[in-house]
Parts: sequence; C-alpha cells; structure tokens
Amino acid sequence: MSSSDRRSQELDIIPETFSGYKRVQGAYPGYYDVQSDVIPEIRVFSYNAEVCFEHKFNGLSELFAYLDKQPDTLKHWIDTEGIGNTAFFDSLKNYFKLHNLAIEDAVSGDQRPKVETYDEHIFIISRMLYHLPENNKLINEQVAFFVLPNILLTIQDEYEDCLEPVRERLRKGKGTMRASSIFYLTYALIDAIVDNYFPMAENIAQRLNELEDKIITNVNNVSIHDILQIKREILQIRKAALAERDKISELLRCEHPLKDPKVEVYLRDTYDHCLQILEVLDDEKEIAYSLAEAYNSTLTHKTNEVMKVLTIISAIFIPLTFIVGVYGMNFAPEGLEKEALPLNMPELYHPYGYIGVWIVMIAIAIGAFIFFKRKRWI
Amino acid sequence: MSSSDRRSQELDIIPETFSGYKRVQGAYPGYYDVQSDVIPEIRVFSYNAEVCFEHKFNGLSELFAYLDKQPDTLKHWIDTEGIGNTAFFDSLKNYFKLHNLAIEDAVSGDQRPKVETYDEHIFIISRMLYHLPENNKLINEQVAFFVLPNILLTIQDEYEDCLEPVRERLRKGKGTMRASSIFYLTYALIDAIVDNYFPMAENIAQRLNELEDKIITNVNNVSIHDILQIKREILQIRKAALAERDKISELLRCEHPLKDPKVEVYLRDTYDHCLQILEVLDDEKEIAYSLAEAYNSTLTHKTNEVMKVLTIISAIFIPLTFIVGVYGMNFAPEGLEKEALPLNMPELYHPYGYIGVWIVMIAIAIGAFIFFKRKRWI
Amino acid sequence: MSSSDRRSQELDIIPETFSGYKRVQGAYPGYYDVQSDVIPEIRVFSYNAEVCFEHKFNGLSELFAYLDKQPDTLKHWIDTEGIGNTAFFDSLKNYFKLHNLAIEDAVSGDQRPKVETYDEHIFIISRMLYHLPENNKLINEQVAFFVLPNILLTIQDEYEDCLEPVRERLRKGKGTMRASSIFYLTYALIDAIVDNYFPMAENIAQRLNELEDKIITNVNNVSIHDILQIKREILQIRKAALAERDKISELLRCEHPLKDPKVEVYLRDTYDHCLQILEVLDDEKEIAYSLAEAYNSTLTHKTNEVMKVLTIISAIFIPLTFIVGVYGMNFAPEGLEKEALPLNMPELYHPYGYIGVWIVMIAIAIGAFIFFKRKRWI
Amino acid sequence: MSSSDRRSQELDIIPETFSGYKRVQGAYPGYYDVQSDVIPEIRVFSYNAEVCFEHKFNGLSELFAYLDKQPDTLKHWIDTEGIGNTAFFDSLKNYFKLHNLAIEDAVSGDQRPKVETYDEHIFIISRMLYHLPENNKLINEQVAFFVLPNILLTIQDEYEDCLEPVRERLRKGKGTMRASSIFYLTYALIDAIVDNYFPMAENIAQRLNELEDKIITNVNNVSIHDILQIKREILQIRKAALAERDKISELLRCEHPLKDPKVEVYLRDTYDHCLQILEVLDDEKEIAYSLAEAYNSTLTHKTNEVMKVLTIISAIFIPLTFIVGVYGMNFAPEGLEKEALPLNMPELYHPYGYIGVWIVMIAIAIGAFIFFKRKRWI
Amino acid sequence: MSSSDRRSQELDIIPETFSGYKRVQGAYPGYYDVQSDVIPEIRVFSYNAEVCFEHKFNGLSELFAYLDKQPDTLKHWIDTEGIGNTAFFDSLKNYFKLHNLAIEDAVSGDQRPKVETYDEHIFIISRMLYHLPENNKLINEQVAFFVLPNILLTIQDEYEDCLEPVRERLRKGKGTMRASSIFYLTYALIDAIVDNYFPMAENIAQRLNELEDKIITNVNNVSIHDILQIKREILQIRKAALAERDKISELLRCEHPLKDPKVEVYLRDTYDHCLQILEVLDDEKEIAYSLAEAYNSTLTHKTNEVMKVLTIISAIFIPLTFIVGVYGMNFAPEGLEKEALPLNMPELYHPYGYIGVWIVMIAIAIGAFIFFKRKRWI
Repeated sequence: MSSSDRRSQELDIIPETFSGYKRVQGAYPGYYDVQSDVIPEIRVFSYNAEVCFEHKFNGLSELFAYLDKQPDTLKHWIDTEGIGNTAFFDSLKNYFKLHNLAIEDAVSGDQRPKVETYDEHIFIISRMLYHLPENNKLINEQVAFFVLPNILLTIQDEYEDCLEPVRERLRKGKGTMRASSIFYLTYALIDAIVDNYFPMAENIAQRLNELEDKIITNVNNVSIHDILQIKREILQIRKAALAERDKISELLRCEHPLKDPKVEVYLRDTYDHCLQILEVLDDEKEIAYSLAEAYNSTLTHKTNEVMKVLTIISAIFIPLTFIVGVYGMNFAPEGLEKEALPLNMPELYHPYGYIGVWIVMIAIAIGAFIFFKRKRWI
Repeated sequence: MSSSDRRSQELDIIPETFSGYKRVQGAYPGYYDVQSDVIPEIRVFSYNAEVCFEHKFNGLSELFAYLDKQPDTLKHWIDTEGIGNTAFFDSLKNYFKLHNLAIEDAVSGDQRPKVETYDEHIFIISRMLYHLPENNKLINEQVAFFVLPNILLTIQDEYEDCLEPVRERLRKGKGTMRASSIFYLTYALIDAIVDNYFPMAENIAQRLNELEDKIITNVNNVSIHDILQIKREILQIRKAALAERDKISELLRCEHPLKDPKVEVYLRDTYDHCLQILEVLDDEKEIAYSLAEAYNSTLTHKTNEVMKVLTIISAIFIPLTFIVGVYGMNFAPEGLEKEALPLNMPELYHPYGYIGVWIVMIAIAIGAFIFFKRKRWI
Repeated sequence: MSSSDRRSQELDIIPETFSGYKRVQGAYPGYYDVQSDVIPEIRVFSYNAEVCFEHKFNGLSELFAYLDKQPDTLKHWIDTEGIGNTAFFDSLKNYFKLHNLAIEDAVSGDQRPKVETYDEHIFIISRMLYHLPENNKLINEQVAFFVLPNILLTIQDEYEDCLEPVRERLRKGKGTMRASSIFYLTYALIDAIVDNYFPMAENIAQRLNELEDKIITNVNNVSIHDILQIKREILQIRKAALAERDKISELLRCEHPLKDPKVEVYLRDTYDHCLQILEVLDDEKEIAYSLAEAYNSTLTHKTNEVMKVLTIISAIFIPLTFIVGVYGMNFAPEGLEKEALPLNMPELYHPYGYIGVWIVMIAIAIGAFIFFKRKRWI
Repeated sequence: MSSSDRRSQELDIIPETFSGYKRVQGAYPGYYDVQSDVIPEIRVFSYNAEVCFEHKFNGLSELFAYLDKQPDTLKHWIDTEGIGNTAFFDSLKNYFKLHNLAIEDAVSGDQRPKVETYDEHIFIISRMLYHLPENNKLINEQVAFFVLPNILLTIQDEYEDCLEPVRERLRKGKGTMRASSIFYLTYALIDAIVDNYFPMAENIAQRLNELEDKIITNVNNVSIHDILQIKREILQIRKAALAERDKISELLRCEHPLKDPKVEVYLRDTYDHCLQILEVLDDEKEIAYSLAEAYNSTLTHKTNEVMKVLTIISAIFIPLTFIVGVYGMNFAPEGLEKEALPLNMPELYHPYGYIGVWIVMIAIAIGAFIFFKRKRWI
Repeated sequence: MSSSDRRSQELDIIPETFSGYKRVQGAYPGYYDVQSDVIPEIRVFSYNAEVCFEHKFNGLSELFAYLDKQPDTLKHWIDTEGIGNTAFFDSLKNYFKLHNLAIEDAVSGDQRPKVETYDEHIFIISRMLYHLPENNKLINEQVAFFVLPNILLTIQDEYEDCLEPVRERLRKGKGTMRASSIFYLTYALIDAIVDNYFPMAENIAQRLNELEDKIITNVNNVSIHDILQIKREILQIRKAALAERDKISELLRCEHPLKDPKVEVYLRDTYDHCLQILEVLDDEKEIAYSLAEAYNSTLTHKTNEVMKVLTIISAIFIPLTFIVGVYGMNFAPEGLEKEALPLNMPELYHPYGYIGVWIVMIAIAIGAFIFFKRKRWI
C-alpha cells in the first residue's frame, strides 16, 4: 500500500459535520444554518397491526397534507434522507413542535449518541458505523430520532443498509413490530445500529490476525501505520459503543409518557449487546497494542540478527585480511639479497611458508566459528 | 514451534457461536435459527434425599412423557449435550415456558456470563474454560442454566469433564446435595466451573516460568508471539472470571422465589474464589508484561554485546591492517636503487624494520585491549 | 525549525500570573498586591429588551457615577481590560461588595476554572485558550466573572476576540439575549469560551496529520520534541476543558438567587459541548502517543535498514578483499625461481590463475546476494 | 548470581497450599483433606489481668481436658503450629463448633486476608510475609484466627518470629493486653503482622538503591531479571497489604458480639499503618519501573557509545587503508621502464611521494578527528 | 555531576523517622521511645486581639509555670523545636492530656498528613517540603499540631522558614489573625505549608525546562538518572499534596468543638490551592515521562546517525579498497614476461590502466553518494 493510499484511509479525529451545515462560533443556542441544495427525500411507513403502507414525498408540504388526513389508528415512521436547508428544518420544527436545541443537534451531524427528553418529544442521537466495501474506509454517520406521539421522525444523510432489515420486518409484518408502539420501532432501529457494530469488530479481528501473520512471516512488509490505523478504528468504534451504552442506560432510566415500558426488557438486551461489543473491542485494543509491541520487538530481533551476520563475517575476515596484508609487505625487497636483512620476513623464503599461513588462517576461521557457536550466535 | 503451529493455537478474539447457529442482523428480539443435524443427547438425574436415578433420552417427547409421570417429590437435572435445531428449542420453550430472549442467548453460544430473572425461571450463563490436553489450545465453552421449580435445565455443546465431580456427588449422595434445593445444584455446577479456572491459572503460571527460563538462558529461542499468546489467554480467562464474579454478585443480590437463601453462604465462598483467581491472574498479567519487557531488554543487551565484539575486533585489526598496508606500498621500486629516492620508505631497508613493525603492532593491540578493559567492555 | 524557535514556543507548565501581580508566601487570605501602571479600560454595555448602549470609561469614579444614575430596568455588563493596581481593585471591592478571596483569585490570573457562591454574588473563573496567529503559540488567559444583581463584572487582561460574537449579539439584539437575565449573558460568555476550544482541537488535529505525514515520508525531519509539544498543548486544553466541565456541572447544581433557572437547559448544552471536546482531545492524546511510538518504530526500522546496507556491502566485499589480499602476498619472491619454493602460491604462475580468482570472487558475490535475497534483506 | 540461583529465588505466582493439603476439584463446600504426618504442637497462653500461664500440649485430647477444667475468668490463646490431618481438624471443629467453610480456608493455606463472621465465632485470615535471612527469599505464610468467647485459636504452619513480641508482652504483662479482651489480643497479633511489612519494604528499598548504583556504575553487571524479581516482590507485598487494609476496614465496620469496641481506635491505627506501607510500596513500584526504564536507556546509551568508537576508528582508518592500497597496486611493473607507462603511478617515482602520502593521510585523520569533535562524538 | 554526587541527592523512599526515635516491632500501641540528647527549644506566642508576647523557654517546667499563671483571655502557640526524649513527651502528655497514639505519631516523624479527633484535642500532621538551597536536596519534614482549647502545640525538628511569615503576621497584628481563634492560627500554618509547595513546583518546572534544553542540544550530557531524580521528587511532592488535600477535606467535614466554623471558607481556599498544585504536578509528571521518552528517542536517533556515517564511509571505501587490492595481486610476476601469462592482469600493462582504475573508483564513489542522497541519508 502506498503512503498516499494509506493517508486516504485516515480517520478524521473530529467527526465531520454534515456537508452544507455551517457552525457559527458564538451563535445563540439553537441556531442552525444549513445551505445545502439537496432536496431531502422523505419516505413514510404508515402501519398498524393490520396494514403497512409505504409512501415517498419530495417535499414537506406533501407530507404534512398526507399526515393531516390520516386516522389516529395509524403509526408513522417518517424517514428523511439528505440534509436540506434552514427552511426545511424550520418547517419540520414548526409542524412537529420540535425543540430548537434538538434540531440544532440533528442538523449538525457531529453529535455524540445521547438521549434528551423534552415535554413534547424524546430526542435520540445514534452513530451508525460501517466500513465502505470498496476501500474499507470507516464511515461514521449520524442518525437523529424524534419520538413523537405515534410518529417517529428520523433524520439522516443517507439511507443506511443496516436499517433495511427493520424496514423489511415492517413490510412483512413478522414478529410483533407492527402491533407495538412507536417506541418499539425506535428500539428496533437502535438495536439494528448496535448489532451492526459486530461485523465491524469482526472486520477488525480479521485484519489483526492478518497483521500478526505478516509480522511473524515478514516484518518488513508491515508498517507501524497499519497498526496505528487499526488502533484508531478500534478507538472510534469503542467511543461510539460506549456512548450507545450510556444512551441506552439513560433510555432505561428516563421517565417519559412516550416511553413504552414493555420495550425495557428488549432495551436491556441491546444494553447487553453493547457490553459484549465493548468487551470484544477491549480485547482488540489490547491485541493491537500487543502487535505494536511485537512489531518493535521483531524489528529489534532482526537488527540483532543483521548485526550478528556482520560481526561474524567481520570477525572471521578482518584478522585474515590483516595476516595476508602482513605478507604483502615489502620488507624483503628483491634488489637485496635475503641474507642482507635476515630478520625481515624470513617466512617468505620458507618452503612451507605459504601453506603455513593458510593453516593458520583456517585455524583462526575455525576458532572464530567455534567461538560464535558457543555464544549461540550461529 | 513453527509459525503455522503457532497460528493454529491462536485465540478467536470474538467468541464463536455454536456451530449450526446463525446470527441474523436486524432480526426481531428473541429470534433464533439453528440448523444442526445433531440430535441432542438428554441425560436426566432425578433425585431426592433418598434416591437418585439416571436416565438418557434421545428425544424431547420421551423426556416430556417421563417428566409428566414423575412425583413432585423428585428434583430433576436435565442435562442436554449438543445444539439441536430450531424445532428442538421451540419444544423446550413451550414445555418449560422459557422466555424467548433467554432461549436466544442459550442457543447462540457466545454470551457473557450473566444472570437474568424472569417470572417463571432464573436464567444463568457460565463460561467453561479449559486447555485441550493434546495441544494446549484454550477452549471457551458456554453452559446455560434454566432454574425452574424442582427442575434444572442445562444446555451445552459437549458434556464437560469439570462437571463430572458434581455428577459423582449426586450419584454417591455425599454431602448435602441430594437433600438440598435445585438452586443448590445450580450453585454446585457454577462452583465447579469457577474451580476449574485454578488449574488453568496454574497451566499459565508454569508456562510463564518456562518462558522466563528460556529468556534467561537463550533469548533467541523465544518468540515475542509466545508471550503475546499467553497474555491473550490471561485476558480471556480474566474476562470470564470478572464476568463470573459480577454474575455471582448479581445472584447474591437478586430476589427470586426460586432462589434458596441457604445457598448464599456458599455462593459467597465461590465469590471469594473468583476474587482469588482474579488476583492470581492480575499477577500473571503483570508478569507477562514484565516478560515482554525482559525479552526486549535482553535483546538490546545481546545487540550491545554483539556490537562490542565487532568493535573490539575492528578496533584492533583495522589499524593494524592499515600499517601492513603502508609497508605494502611500492614507493621503493626495485628498478631504482634505494639511494635514488632516499626518503621513500627507508624502513624497508632497516635490518630491524620488520621486527619493529611487529612490535608497534603488538603494542597497538595491547593498547586497544587495555582501553576496552578499562571501559569494562571485556 | 531551530532549537531556539522551538523553545520560544514552549508552554509554561505553571500558569503565569498576570503581570504586575505579586504572590506573597504566607500572606493572609484574600491579600492581593498588584503594581501595574496600566489604567484598565472599562467598557459597559447597558441594555434591556428594547435598548443597548455602549460606553467606555477610563476610571472607576466615572463608572460609579454613571451606574448610580441608571434606572433599575437596565442590565449592565462591565467589561474591564487590563489589570490595574491594588487601589483599583479596592474600589471595585468596596463599591460592589465583592468578597476578598474572590478578588484575590480574579487578580492573580493563574486560577483553575471554578464557581464560588457568596451571599452577594456568584464568582466564576474561566480560562480562555487560543493559538497566537503569528507563531501558533498557545495562550492561556483567565477571565473572571462577578455575577451581581443586574450587573455582570468581567475582569480580564485583554479583550479576547472570541467574546466578540456575544458583544455583536448584544448590539444587534438577535435572539433572546437582551430580554434575558444577566445570568444568561454570563452563560453566553462561558459558552463562547468553551466553543472556542473546538478550533483549537482542529488546529491540533491538523498538526497531528501533518506530523504523521512527515513521519511516513521522511522521519529524519521530525523531532520528537514536536510531538511532545503537541502532547503538552493537548494536556493544557484538556485540563481547561475538564475544569470547565466540572465548573458547569457545579453551576447546574448550585442554588443561588442570582441563578436563572431558564438558563439550565442551555448550560446543559454547553456541558455536552465540553464532553464532546473532551472526547476529541482524548482521541488526539491517544494519537499523539501513537505518533511518538510510530516515530520510534520508524527510527528503529531505519536503523535496521542502514544496518542491512552496511552488512550486505561488508559481507560481499570483505571476503573478496581477503582473497585479493592473499594474492598480494609476496610468497613468490622474484629473486627466487618458482621451482625453489614449489608450494608457494603456484596459482600465480597458472595461465588461468587471474581469471580463476575473478570467477571465484564473482561466485562469492552472487552467493552472498542469493543468501541475502533468501533472508529477504534485499 | 548464576541463573540457577536466580531461579531458586523465584516467587510462586500462585500461593502454595500447606503441604499435606489436597485440593479436590468439584468437592462439596467445606470439604477438606489433609494428609500430613506432622503432629501439630499446641501452645496455650492462659491469662487474665493478674496471671499468665503457658502450656504445651501434644494432642487435642490433652488440650480439651485442660480447657474443660479452667475457670471462666481466664482467657486462652491456643496457638497451633503445623498442619495435622483431617481427624485433627474434625476434633477442633466439633469441640469449638467451627464452621466447615472456615476450617477449609484455615487448612488450605492459600487464602487471601479476609474476615468472616459466623454466629459463634469470627474467622480471620492474615498473611505473614518475611524474607528468609539465609537467601533473601520471600516467604508468604498464612495465619488463621478463630475468635471465640474468651478463646483465640490460631492455626499456622510454623511459629513466626514476628509474633514473639506479642507473646513477650503477654508474659511480662506490660501495657493493657492481659487486662483486655481476647479481641484485643487478636488485634495485637494482626498489628504485629502488619508492622512486619515495614522491614520488608526497607529490605526492598535498600535493594533498589543498590540496583540503581549498579546501573549507574556498571550496567553490564545488572540483569533485567533482578529488577523483575524486585517488582514481583513488591507486587506480592502490596497485594497482601491491600487485602490487609480491606480486612481491617471490614473488621472496623462489622458488628459481632465478640468484637470489643474499645479496640476500634487501635485498629484504626493499624489501618493507617496499612495506608503508610501501601504508599511506600507504590513509590517503590514506581521506582522499580523507573529502574527498568533506566536500565534500557543506559543499555541504548552504551550501544550508542560502542557504535561511536567503531565509527570513529572505521572512519579514520578505512580511507587510509584505501590510500595505502592504491600505492600497493602493481601498475608500475618493474620489468618495464617508467617511461613505457608514463601515466601509471608517477607518484611512486617522486622523491617526496612517500612523505606526501603520509602528509595526506595525517591530514585526513586530523580532518576526521575535527569532524567528530564538532559532532560532539569525542 | 559525578555518580557519588548524584547518589547524595537521592531521596529516601521510606520517610526517615526523627533521629533519636526508635521504632520497636510489636510494641503496644502508643508506645514511644526517644533517646535524643537535644533539649528542645520552646517558643511561645501569647496573644489576643490587642497584644502579642513572645517568650522562649528551655524546659517544660518553666513553660508549665508560665502557662499556669496566664489569664484565660490569651491564646498561646507553643512552638517546640527539636525532638527530646521520652520523659519530655511524657510531661507534655500529662500536662495537656494528649492521647498516647497521637504522641507516638508526633514523635516518630514519618507519618502521613492526617487529622485525628480526640475528645480533648484535634491532632494534625503536616509534611513540610523544601529544597536545601546549598545542594537542591529535597527535605521532607514533619510538623505535628495539637489543637487544644486556646492553645496550639506544634512539634517539629527544626523551625522552618516557611512558617516565618505567620510569626510575622502574629507579631505585626496585620489581618484578623490575632483576633481570631486558635483554629485560625492552625489554618494559617497549614496554609503556609501548602503555599510552600508552589515554589517547589517552580523549582522542578525550571529543572525540567533545563533538561529539555540539554536533550535538544546535547543528549550525551544528560543522564537518565537526572530525569528519574526529578520524577521521584514530583512523586514525593505529589504524595504529600494528595495527603494534604485529603487532610483538609477531612478537616472540613469533621465536627469538633475546637473547630472554628468561620475558618471553613479559608480552608476551602487552601483546598483549592491543593488542587491547583496537584494539577501542576500532574503536568510535570507527564512532562517528566515525556522527557524520558524524548531522551530515548533522541539516543536512538543519534545511534541511527552514527550508523549512517559508518555505513556511508564503509560503502564508499570498502569496494574501492577491494579494487586497489585487485591490482595489488601478484599475478603478473616480474620474473616472467607479460606474454607468458597473457590473461593475467593485462590491465597493468595498459598505458591508461592506472587512470582507468581511478575513473572507475571515482565513478563508484559518486554512485554511492547519489544512492545515499536519494535515500535521504545525507
């Protein structure tokens, strides 16, 4: 993987706001300013125990006209996709009597998972995480829920696949969803979002296993930045899961007329799932840290081995080179006779001189070999 | 150990579900889908203070027929082995009036230890850990307990050896087990599972000792991955023991008509065992971290020693090689007479030139030796 | 960046007191001694729902005269810039009946964010952080708030830009600020200060990204001190944000007649912002630590590569140099005939001797190359 | 210290049970099986404010006969040494009506410090730590206390020296011990055990100081395993001290008729001692970690220095060796006249050639020296 | 700094007891044994709102005689310097009715900061820290306070300078001290002790800055032990400040007739100072850890640079030395004619052979240079 590829995979430390949203420093609380040209798509599921209709609207006026003439016995899930502009949210706010601060949070796109109870509605933020199939990039999207009497309004930038099974359950009428309250639908959506953290943890577990294999087999093909990238993804998912856990715990504790007590046992189950995913993520975090450590140890080990090869070769050949250098000296100049300088390199004139030098050199090489063998370097 | 062997020993970070179980993203709560061909084996212990019968059934219809005609004075432990299919669990659910969410957890096989109280029964998950004797692989199995009036139903994938002593106590009627409530039997099984963590901790302690020995004697035979493997096993056991501790604490606090207050003093004893095992595991974790550190330090120490050998050899022989090189220069060409270039290498013509060079070289070698001795490198 | 530049960017670990303030060890509580020649500038916003006047005063006597003749229907924000001398604060204390300990804290300039409630007023400390645009130095200024009936007195060393939007909202009368209580104004200022932590976190996130890029592309241009500098800035901002969070939580809990209960929902929003910034900072801290680790790993990796180059070159050429040294020996002195010493280097007289040596040397070089290729060093 | 010596000093991570005790997996609660041939020695102190008698018994029947005929006004400390067999403990249990679970814990020898209150008695476990004087090995013994009306029964494997001062105080009647309740005696024994942790912490502090000295003066004589050994001892003592602290806190809170309220102020003093020893141990732990770090840093520093020596020597002599090699080339073959190849090494025939080469080489050496001096390597 | 100097600066991990005090293992609670020849100096401040007298006494009998004849309207601060002997403390205990355990703690000199309330008096321990001006050694002294009705008795080994401002305030009668209760005086002394931690933190901050400068400019002049020394000092001060904070919190919560409720607002101020100093110390701790890390990184960086120099020089000259070695071989023996061995080194006889070799060698050197330039090693 090239460095530029690696960078493109990088996580934004600070969650991005929705495109079109502009944060204004020092603005009054509940102020929002969205300047997008996108016309949000509005999908509505109207259902009760017997029926389930599915509609699409291109504007709020159509939606409001539709809602106004519906009987009280129907529940509606209004599922908007795409962030519109300030006027769009003003209309929503006025029609459904939503709180300014809640709209501001729903619109900004960078909020932590949380629950806020207002007199007229419950406001919930979830963060939906998934890896892009094409490049494994971690996407961190926001979904906002407004729980109103018999109406659930969700605001998201894109319809996420992980909510599709819930839509399917609504359409097919399996289980008790159509007969249950609008709060049950809210639970089912939150549960689907939390359930989606499991395949992410598996994605990471698999990459950790691959990384460990690569560290064992060929540490030089591993970059410490791959490990850091995984650590960051774990931190991102963990942060979301922690906030989800706290949010669900808050939902369990809070008191609100729109809250359906029958859903509590299911919420507790989702809470358990949060704990389970957090345990897995804690393990993965620990393993990611261990891998970084193993990477460093393995590098040190390799350096140690490289050093040994260098030292063994040097230790054998440097003394030998010295010896042959000795007999390359010109202390026995040819112009003079051997007897003139009898002390100067008489070995050269010895019939077994050359062979003797080879024997000495081979003895030195064998000695060095035995020395390193004893030191367990070889 | 080859790398492939090492990999085969690797832990799954995410606990595996039972084979046959299929998790469905976004399914309604309490949904379970098991597609195994295995026909679960059903073993029943029917006992009271006086008697203890042991039966085996191959199907639920046999079991239900048996149970229907038993007197009220008998308690039954229904011990199933092997995960069947959806129909099997549907029958169990209907006959014993088990809660959907509990069945889902019992069937999935990857749940955390926990207690859940329903109106009709108490539901408990334990995790049974053991090392496979053949390859020391850590196995992490789930056992689910349904505590019903006078009936304990356990669901597990394989009969585990560590529950055998409890079966033996039932058969032999030692202690007060046969005379005690069905909740006492539940306690005895949980206690046996927790007790089994001790030999695991001993297995790890022994491997840590062996690793330390190897690091001291021959660090190059140690792989950092062996240390990481032990760290992960400690984390696995610790995670299970922590959840067991919390579960037992929950069991101590919860109020349920099926809970036998006489068992509390024994549960507190098991709670103490959890604390004890956690303390041991904390120590082992600390030691595993220390070993990783010792491994790195020892490697650095070895590199330091290798460097020293290289430097000593180089420092002694490189200057000597230079000197012999000097006297290998051809500044005293034979074609010319010595007097033609009187400044060019007169040493070569000196009767003690050769011996003088050796004296200088030996002096340099001794000097270097003394230098390194003073620096405490030798 | 030169070392001296780096030093000039360094953070003071201990927050600086305002210039002119002298801390006296062992002085009685509430003692303050300020010896500055600066005459503080006093800007007053007098406003209610309908009007908003802005005045500047150069002395306290002018201010007090102005305040004395104002109607009760006006609220005043008295915004002082510059720390004066002891006499200045004595006057303020006497006119507004401020508590000695509060004045001492407002004057010293090195206090932690906190709330203190006195009978007559609420005293609040905030810390305003910003990067100097010219050299990116982190500045850590104190703002003290005295909330009095219908009066807010703020004491700061310099008018900070981040409060300008609030002044603008007062002037333009947008939102509900002019109609709301003086406590709402206090909230708005604290909120503006907390909001200003976000661009700081973005500044740091960007620098972390740049550092990571540099570590990947050219680790030698990175200094560990750049990473440490960022870590320290994160710690500074985190410390301030933590104390702000605790302060706001304290403000939410405290009971005081001057506290406006309508502001609580907004304060809770600011509290959420604190949590959000703390999460971002925690991530940034984690990433800064990872970068330090990546820096070290990359250095070790580079050393490993340098070692490999050295070892490969040495391993190829040192043996070859030995071989050519062998045939540089003078065991075949020209003065003697070849037959005199038949065992001395007969290779030299072989017609293919030279070519043979080259073949041997090339074979050795290729062998070494294959050896290193197999070891994956090349 | 040789490696085998080091190993013999190693701590058992899992506390050893008393020899003779056999843990049985899955046994019923309160089951104990001890198979020792040792006949426990029984020492009894019978005392009140006026008198103090000391007896020794070799069997329980003698003891029970003695106790049966004693007046109510005497208090008895029954101090057993050595773990006997199951029959011994059965007799004790029946005579004193001890709880099964308590006997099991007293007998096993590997329990954590704890308090357990039963209707008839208070059961306390302490861990007594000391260094063997002969080889500085850390010993971790268990003492069990059964507080009964007017009787204190202690079970230990060996009479420990650190309880001797308490025996002496009983004999000499100093202080208020003889006049106080049996619970006061229990306190005094626990206090003596906790007090004994101080000389252990001093032993460790001294060894840490010695280690630091050795790291500064000669890092190669230090083994990382010495540091790890100290870390483990600190962890052992800390674990015991933490559990003692919790135990004493539990003793302070618990309500039992056998508890003497006058002792609370003294127990609080012992609690303070626990806090004090824990603070010291925390410091020692921090220092032990710092020493491991200093050890690694010092090793890296040494490697750096070794590298510098190697590089300086290489950088000076390798170029020089090249130069002398140049003039060792045979491009000026003697058989030919100088004029035949006028471009081939004319330097050799220059009268100042040799001296010129020396001047160049000395210049290069000085240049390298200055270069390294500037780089502050020398 | 030499190693012996460094050692002399070392902190005692275990706080020293006062000289003369002997700890006796297993002694009864409240036992103290002091064997000093020093006759403590006793300084008494007798004051009320109007007057303040200062006396010195050389013995307790003088003091008691003086106190006996004083009117009730005077408050007395009895400030003893120097630890006397057992008799001295026995007299104090009897005259002022002090509790045995409190006297034991006051006398031992190694206690943690704490508050203990007895019926007759409040007992407080503070730890006074300062750097010796002559050698910057950290001194850790104990001051014990006995708060009695209208009398404050302090026991310390030496009169500390940091209490001097309080004595001055008593003498000069500034502030409200002389008019306030004896508990206010106690507060003022504790406050002076806590205030004195600030200059210590500044001392450390300055040394950390100096160390960082040295690491940047010349890492070889820095010893890891200097960093460890600072870390230990930070730990010492932090430990004292933490205990002071807890002590003051305890003082704020405790109820005692001798406690003056008006002092609470001032104690809260001191509590804030503790938090402030703890924050600074936490930052300093973090920076000290970072410096240790920067030290190691810088060393690794230096080693990397040293390696590069070695590798560049070797990579350039080792191949060149090989080449010149080739042409130093004697395959063209002069005794034979060139034509006899036409394949043996014909280059030697080529007119441009020598120049050709130089060209090849220069090309190799330039190639290596370009290679290293591309690798960014130069």
